[in-house]
Amino acid sequence: MTAAELAQATRRFVRDVVLPAEPPAGTELPPDGRDALQRRAREAGVFAPQVPARFGGLGLPLDDWSPVFQEAGYSLLGPAALNCMAPDEGNMYLLEKVATPEQQERYLRPLAAGQTRSCFAMTEPHPGAGSDPAALATTARRVDGGWEIDGEKRFISGADEAGVAIVMARTPELGDAAATMLLVPMDTDGVEVGHPIRTMETAITGGHPHVHFRGVRVDDDAVLGEAGEGFAYAQVRLGPARLTHCMRWLGLARRAQDTALDRVRSREMFGAHLSDLGIAQGMLADSEIDLASSEAVIDRAARLLVEDPRAGATASSIAKVHVSEAVGRVIDRAVQLCGGDGVTLELPLLAFLNEVRPFRVYDGSSETHRWAIARRAVSRRRREVEGGEGVLDTAEALR
Amino acid sequence: MTAAELAQATRRFVRDVVLPAEPPAGTELPPDGRDALQRRAREAGVFAPQVPARFGGLGLPLDDWSPVFQEAGYSLLGPAALNCMAPDEGNMYLLEKVATPEQQERYLRPLAAGQTRSCFAMTEPHPGAGSDPAALATTARRVDGGWEIDGEKRFISGADEAGVAIVMARTPELGDAAATMLLVPMDTDGVEVGHPIRTMETAITGGHPHVHFRGVRVDDDAVLGEAGEGFAYAQVRLGPARLTHCMRWLGLARRAQDTALDRVRSREMFGAHLSDLGIAQGMLADSEIDLASSEAVIDRAARLLVEDPRAGATASSIAKVHVSEAVGRVIDRAVQLCGGDGVTLELPLLAFLNEVRPFRVYDGSSETHRWAIARRAVSRRRREVEGGEGVLDTAEALR
Amino acid sequence: MTAAELAQATRRFVRDVVLPAEPPAGTELPPDGRDALQRRAREAGVFAPQVPARFGGLGLPLDDWSPVFQEAGYSLLGPAALNCMAPDEGNMYLLEKVATPEQQERYLRPLAAGQTRSCFAMTEPHPGAGSDPAALATTARRVDGGWEIDGEKRFISGADEAGVAIVMARTPELGDAAATMLLVPMDTDGVEVGHPIRTMETAITGGHPHVHFRGVRVDDDAVLGEAGEGFAYAQVRLGPARLTHCMRWLGLARRAQDTALDRVRSREMFGAHLSDLGIAQGMLADSEIDLASSEAVIDRAARLLVEDPRAGATASSIAKVHVSEAVGRVIDRAVQLCGGDGVTLELPLLAFLNEVRPFRVYDGSSETHRWAIARRAVSRRRREVEGGEGVLDTAEALR
Amino acid sequence: MTAAELAQATRRFVRDVVLPAEPPAGTELPPDGRDALQRRAREAGVFAPQVPARFGGLGLPLDDWSPVFQEAGYSLLGPAALNCMAPDEGNMYLLEKVATPEQQERYLRPLAAGQTRSCFAMTEPHPGAGSDPAALATTARRVDGGWEIDGEKRFISGADEAGVAIVMARTPELGDAAATMLLVPMDTDGVEVGHPIRTMETAITGGHPHVHFRGVRVDDDAVLGEAGEGFAYAQVRLGPARLTHCMRWLGLARRAQDTALDRVRSREMFGAHLSDLGIAQGMLADSEIDLASSEAVIDRAARLLVEDPRAGATASSIAKVHVSEAVGRVIDRAVQLCGGDGVTLELPLLAFLNEVRPFRVYDGSSETHRWAIARRAVSRRRREVEGGEGVLDTAEALR
Repeated sequence: MTAAELAQATRRFVRDVVLPAEPPAGTELPPDGRDALQRRAREAGVFAPQVPARFGGLGLPLDDWSPVFQEAGYSLLGPAALNCMAPDEGNMYLLEKVATPEQQERYLRPLAAGQTRSCFAMTEPHPGAGSDPAALATTARRVDGGWEIDGEKRFISGADEAGVAIVMARTPELGDAAATMLLVPMDTDGVEVGHPIRTMETAITGGHPHVHFRGVRVDDDAVLGEAGEGFAYAQVRLGPARLTHCMRWLGLARRAQDTALDRVRSREMFGAHLSDLGIAQGMLADSEIDLASSEAVIDRAARLLVEDPRAGATASSIAKVHVSEAVGRVIDRAVQLCGGDGVTLELPLLAFLNEVRPFRVYDGSSETHRWAIARRAVSRRRREVEGGEGVLDTAEALR
Repeated sequence: MTAAELAQATRRFVRDVVLPAEPPAGTELPPDGRDALQRRAREAGVFAPQVPARFGGLGLPLDDWSPVFQEAGYSLLGPAALNCMAPDEGNMYLLEKVATPEQQERYLRPLAAGQTRSCFAMTEPHPGAGSDPAALATTARRVDGGWEIDGEKRFISGADEAGVAIVMARTPELGDAAATMLLVPMDTDGVEVGHPIRTMETAITGGHPHVHFRGVRVDDDAVLGEAGEGFAYAQVRLGPARLTHCMRWLGLARRAQDTALDRVRSREMFGAHLSDLGIAQGMLADSEIDLASSEAVIDRAARLLVEDPRAGATASSIAKVHVSEAVGRVIDRAVQLCGGDGVTLELPLLAFLNEVRPFRVYDGSSETHRWAIARRAVSRRRREVEGGEGVLDTAEALR
Repeated sequence: MTAAELAQATRRFVRDVVLPAEPPAGTELPPDGRDALQRRAREAGVFAPQVPARFGGLGLPLDDWSPVFQEAGYSLLGPAALNCMAPDEGNMYLLEKVATPEQQERYLRPLAAGQTRSCFAMTEPHPGAGSDPAALATTARRVDGGWEIDGEKRFISGADEAGVAIVMARTPELGDAAATMLLVPMDTDGVEVGHPIRTMETAITGGHPHVHFRGVRVDDDAVLGEAGEGFAYAQVRLGPARLTHCMRWLGLARRAQDTALDRVRSREMFGAHLSDLGIAQGMLADSEIDLASSEAVIDRAARLLVEDPRAGATASSIAKVHVSEAVGRVIDRAVQLCGGDGVTLELPLLAFLNEVRPFRVYDGSSETHRWAIARRAVSRRRREVEGGEGVLDTAEALR
Repeated sequence: MTAAELAQATRRFVRDVVLPAEPPAGTELPPDGRDALQRRAREAGVFAPQVPARFGGLGLPLDDWSPVFQEAGYSLLGPAALNCMAPDEGNMYLLEKVATPEQQERYLRPLAAGQTRSCFAMTEPHPGAGSDPAALATTARRVDGGWEIDGEKRFISGADEAGVAIVMARTPELGDAAATMLLVPMDTDGVEVGHPIRTMETAITGGHPHVHFRGVRVDDDAVLGEAGEGFAYAQVRLGPARLTHCMRWLGLARRAQDTALDRVRSREMFGAHLSDLGIAQGMLADSEIDLASSEAVIDRAARLLVEDPRAGATASSIAKVHVSEAVGRVIDRAVQLCGGDGVTLELPLLAFLNEVRPFRVYDGSSETHRWAIARRAVSRRRREVEGGEGVLDTAEALR
């Protein structure tokens, strides 16, 4: 199956199978609903599209993920049904890239099969690792034959009933700035899921609770890949992980736009203030432009991530800011175009708006990314000028 | 008490009494909470600020409402506590302006005292009166000694457990385009509260259900003011009513901004990326500008409503678009500035965002207002040119 | 004549007399054109509206200036014709407030009569006083019976052929942070108009050249008001001066909107894509909202400047940011609505765009104002919390 | 030379040769400047990058043009130096695609060599063909052995001293809706260059005059490609032509951003309000995002134009709106970041702003494109629903 065919198959699966299974807005999917949808996704041949074939997936390369993930994201349930939802999708990617073969067998294979779920335990309560990983407070210290982990993590998406956590911890014995990732089964002694942070979004199974690690002992083979590489691995995970969020939410924005188009079509049929429709057309066009430019920046970032990880990281940062804001605008316009119905729960649009709103904060807020994007631009230009490019701001000289 | 003193007293009441009484985000005020707060508002001498003194209120003139209503709106519970919340506040204004003395005694007095609630039954299911009142489908027909009302109303805010409805109905016997408002006690035979439309906001007590009128018989004295004046009365109510929404929501936006300022202050104290704070400063300043310009357009519209109702209606339409969008931006920036916490229910900001979102649709969507604003501008200019002003678009002549 | 009558008279004068005298876009008014227009303004009874009656003006109070200045600004030539153009208008205001009676007779009276022009010499080349007055490098030192001024000023609007300069200079003998303003006739020995900074705007007569002060000797009576009060006086001048810019440019934006309305009317008459007109209506409405909110924030700032200079300064800073950006948007939309003609010199719109663009930089850039606005908001909130208001960002506590 | 190498060579040529040749802002390149630069471009091996090798160019495929054209556009003189400037570039593309071999030898070869210039005569005075080609008023009628052309064209970029015009004319004898393109040497009897429309941009050699065709006789071989195919050919030309505008202007926007980066770097070095820099960082980041998203939508459109001309036309329409607005924002931010200097002619930024402003109107205004984009979206969705997709706007049913 080519990538285009897989996107088409995913489209049919999501629209024919997943959409009808959606619970009414404001209500929840029954507990076994996810398993049932995953079973049907397997039958439809669209399960785990991004997972390498040797772990049971469809082996799609990263720069072909976008159309498939967009189709999955057309329903809030689609990514879970296809097993390409955060945080598992990012965790599987990381395990594939840096885990040992034994770790891959033990953790990646069942994740890929949808038999368990995982979480990524990096964020900490203030003043620990928030947007600034350098403040990491959780530690893993060498003990006989292994490591002992102590610390508190916060806003750990998917932690509730997850099978395993990838825990980010400082390992001071390996250097002041050294961090290590460890694979910790959630039923290990000393691991406790704490206070659930309540949010208004529902797409991620397992909530966003605190997780406490109190004297948690793990063996040496719990070290993901190599000890001391935690920060490097975080980058390996993050570049694609924030981009797949873009892909999925872009799919949801397309659905919002289609809903608005249905509304506008019906108003045209039944008669309406023509001029009113004119303003609507401007809004629809703005959304089309947002959708197309989002798709384009995602494609650009995915291609660069494959060709040149460093350039790809910058591009995925830019894509994250652009897409997180663009999908919010598109859904907001759809709410507006559906008028009174748009602001009720008769349509899912307001729920969609609440689902995507946090994306402007997750994985680095728009402001943090903007700060970093500007710093990189200044550095890039500094290198150019130091490399001989003429200074363009010549006004100084003329004063 | 001067208007400034009343604003100050309201400020103290809301911050000292109402804020501590707020239920946690995502939960509801206990049923008797509203009554308790109204009692305390009376004790504090801030109850019913906009109601004429002869009906037990504080008699504040319309162009002094804004600072008081803003202080009330600083809490979602404030306007109900002060009895200046929609739809009652708009209904009381209308009753004061057009009701007979008997109607005022029977309906306005208990409303002003907070002993009952009311609703305004104008909007209808498609293809009836939505944003276009001309499509009004509900009828009131002459019967012996009174009128018989038939029709279905939709999205009737506050209808659940309201004591009285102001019902807008076509009265074809008075002319094809004639409409009449009627005062209908909600326990009248044939009145039935129907399907509740679920929304994400909570500030309006009594929900937004459908209300059915089936062969509802009322006496002649149920006609509000004069028969056939329904559309004119709708304008009387609407100009101030949408402006008081602006005032209340502006207060809520001030609260969101204060919350963001608290966050930024504490980050400054505890240290943060300075450059990050720089971007935050741009956002804080944009919000200050939104708040100040919102206050200014509200004041301008309130003043014009008093001086020249026609100019005031245009000004209140412009204010409605500007303020409804500005308060959304201010709260959205506050969500962003509070980062991870902003997108959870640990803070009420996301709830505030959901509360104000519908205001861009209620009382005429931004698009409908824009259409009307543009039409008025074109007409205004046409009159000027017809009155002798030179045409400025002279390019045509030069081609 | 009431303020409203004066606004109406100004309107008629500008539209009937000034508009027909405008040179074609891209060309200049003949040298004696300004004098001729001022003569006619005197005849029409609209000359020097803001100047106190005792100096020959119409004595309009500050909070009534806006409608008159807007009418004047409808033409780029209007403010010069009425003698209410920058920098003279701001200089006259300052002279009225702080100059000695002798200085007022010598400098204010002929300025008010339009017999001469003036400039305000504050800005300096890098790293002197730019947006940061504290960096002031020009000095005035005590010499026998007077002062000797040395320094270079830059971007001194109106300096070419001006009669007098108000020179801002550090006076270190009065204290490290002391600055003094001095009235220096431009024909004084040692004053030299230097390199003209070329710009794309034309409304200010006298260009924006450098001005050199080399050993310029003036007597004691050249000190404007009191020595050492320079920075305080700069604030006295600045609050109203940036607001009158807002008023004048708002008038120009109204003209651009009227031009666009003429275009849209004629397209309606001659037929056009209706849907196209719909998008146009959204743009026209956005401009109406920008115009109304600009007027409202100007009125709010003018009123506060009269009532409470400190609050007025903040309000005029906010007004400056809002209006400078709003007028740019309004004119830009007008360019767009006039299509092909809008981007040529067949219409003056593109010239208008170039005229107002610098206003987002002059008198403090939007960014500098935003920085100050945010700082003031943080301080305001800090005082409130220190005064007992509860901290609203309660998420910290819950973590 | 690979495409990447050619982009690099172009970069070096433009920065080392073209930038130093730029005349000061507000002045013009000497008449022989263009020829000199073209000669040096030939020597540098970067001349005519997009022209097929068989006509003397470098034969770059369309989906590789963007990086090269961006480098060329870094200077307003670059595209002319490389012979990839409008309107010649679009005309050469069209000639290559649809002209007969004889026409290609006669017209394309000398154009490709830079020996002559051309214009594209489609737009007409009101009410002729403006944004709506269907209103085409110029006619070509069959005469013995050829055609006789009558009509008036307007805003014909590059017409002054052009060697040949591609004239769009209605050919009613071929059908009511038939149009034909004809190749008309500008020295043909009856061709007259008329009133020059003055603009504020300078990048296009040959101005934007009216061109009159009065009884102009041409032979049969003047018909470009096939008679009656005029509208189809217009689409062939337009898709890439508006995209190459995007590429060139994007290069200019990069230069503006580099200028702003130089300013920010020097302010960092010399000290500045850090918070001020923070707001600047937000602006720089926004510009980086605009640049990256513009590049991405251009690449997407270029790829689609190669793969699927119909989808490519939609994509190039979206790219045109996005890029024309984005480059304006980027340059405007650069003006602002350079403060006082930005709004003078000491820097070329304000000139750049005037150069790109018309691009939001040329080749279909943003509004016309938005209207078309919305129409296509509605049609696309209609086809989907008619093809069996479920209607998503389900609120109607629930009412």
